[in-house]
Amino acid sequence: MGARDVGLPEHLPRSGELPAEVTIWEVGPRDGLQNEAATVPVDVKLEFLDRLADAGLTTLEATSFVHPKWVPQLADAEELLSRLDRRTGARYPVLVPNARGLDRAVDAGIADIAVFASATESFAKRNLNSTYDEQFAMFEPVIARARGEGMAVRGYLSMCFGDPWEGVVDPGQVVAAGRRLLDAGCGQLSLGDTIGVATPGQVDRLVDAFAAAGVGVDALAVHFHDTYGQALSNTLAALRRGVATVDSSAGGLGGCPYAESATGNLATEDLVWMLDGLGVRHGADLDALVTTSTWMAQRLGRPSPSRVVRALAG
Amino acid sequence: MGARDVGLPEHLPRSGELPAEVTIWEVGPRDGLQNEAATVPVDVKLEFLDRLADAGLTTLEATSFVHPKWVPQLADAEELLSRLDRRTGARYPVLVPNARGLDRAVDAGIADIAVFASATESFAKRNLNSTYDEQFAMFEPVIARARGEGMAVRGYLSMCFGDPWEGVVDPGQVVAAGRRLLDAGCGQLSLGDTIGVATPGQVDRLVDAFAAAGVGVDALAVHFHDTYGQALSNTLAALRRGVATVDSSAGGLGGCPYAESATGNLATEDLVWMLDGLGVRHGADLDALVTTSTWMAQRLGRPSPSRVVRALAG
Repeated sequence: MGARDVGLPEHLPRSGELPAEVTIWEVGPRDGLQNEAATVPVDVKLEFLDRLADAGLTTLEATSFVHPKWVPQLADAEELLSRLDRRTGARYPVLVPNARGLDRAVDAGIADIAVFASATESFAKRNLNSTYDEQFAMFEPVIARARGEGMAVRGYLSMCFGDPWEGVVDPGQVVAAGRRLLDAGCGQLSLGDTIGVATPGQVDRLVDAFAAAGVGVDALAVHFHDTYGQALSNTLAALRRGVATVDSSAGGLGGCPYAESATGNLATEDLVWMLDGLGVRHGADLDALVTTSTWMAQRLGRPSPSRVVRALAG
Repeated sequence: MGARDVGLPEHLPRSGELPAEVTIWEVGPRDGLQNEAATVPVDVKLEFLDRLADAGLTTLEATSFVHPKWVPQLADAEELLSRLDRRTGARYPVLVPNARGLDRAVDAGIADIAVFASATESFAKRNLNSTYDEQFAMFEPVIARARGEGMAVRGYLSMCFGDPWEGVVDPGQVVAAGRRLLDAGCGQLSLGDTIGVATPGQVDRLVDAFAAAGVGVDALAVHFHDTYGQALSNTLAALRRGVATVDSSAGGLGGCPYAESATGNLATEDLVWMLDGLGVRHGADLDALVTTSTWMAQRLGRPSPSRVVRALAG
């Protein structure tokens, strides 16, 4: 008899301080696959997206318009989007790095895009080849044009807690960067712990700092990496502060369990297990997710780093 | 440059609601090694315990007096204890299942023992071959005699959240079992999520139920397994309720990262990373723990399931 047969965690009351419902922003097809060594065929990506939608996920970050030179794993973005069965009621955001990326998004008929900025000067230079200020100068017209096209725009903010070159990142610095993205027209910020070093007290302080600056939890999402095993604890802290959008990756895609460093995203299944136990609604079906991630792990030729997938896939 | 060089998470203020200091109850040498497929030579166990003490851990569950027929991995308990360098200021509890085990503990000059009971009828039958009531009848004279010998006695309580045969376990049932152990003379209860299914709201409710029954957090420890990736989040919930003793296993010993199901204990290093970030004192040195767990993983011929160990061991 498997542990799944325990019937946990479906029948528990919701803790009072948590949001009644959480939006799972599924990043596996984009953030997950772009960090896998293997390039997945477009047919597999399409089946993956279909299966995730079948599992009840309604926000599926589908691909990226970053230049294929930088992300060859997602070079098939146009083909994928042209063949994608976009479900009614579901959103399929696409990452857009610059004006050229926005052109591609417009051509593809995309309704939701995401841009990405850095909360630190060092990472802006290394990831975007721009200064901290230049990145906003680059994004502002892109966001304005996207909004003019009727698109919704999310702003990813990297290095919100720690930065490999700058150490601990001051919440005030993150709030200032976030305000610029919101002022430019982003409807939501995704606060990223890009190197996975954050701990829950930092999450509390950052959400509180945004609140003090007039940015409520409705405008915030969180994006944690599990490099140091902290992703779900940090998510719990954010939920208990009222954050109701959580980024995660089906099967923990993007982190290889055989690598010395498992730098992947929070696994959607591990998040769903916790949400079910906490009585927080999310709309996803855990068994369908596990089946999908098991199937994808077979495509990638290695086990999933998700603990729930490994426990239930037997 | 490695992420460790970020300098996180040492320089952060402590969140107000947390204990100022936590006792890490290191169970790797006992609970970890008894669940490894390989039997580790006694010389390696002794070096492991020495290294863990050198790393600053002061509560080291050393071995078990369960009959070697059931736990062959720890059949060398007498030799290990006779050769162990017991450090001043450190405690080396030993698991004792019954009167015969207590005889062995007395002969070995042990000052701290732990007994283990089940919160559920089903697991009492399967793990102890007794009814729920019979287990207490068996333990009570053992605990009384141990106390008469001047020993401190911890009571492990299994299946405190979910049970494979009974489903969700009612907090009232756990409190009743815990009270019997405390009334029998146990100085501390370790509340175990034996199958790793718990979520943080359950932890809140169980700690609150003990408080309502007059059992404060000073008498409680928590013991989480990471089968579904929830161990650290559950620990965070317990810390925020004031629990100040946390069981963990160096390197996540007891859970194999190659197995379909990673059922190991919470990794000490992942706990320490969070405690450091939260500003909670614990006395352990993370780098020394990582070095030790990396060395032990080499002895076992497989990588550590601890995320921190895998991130920092490079």
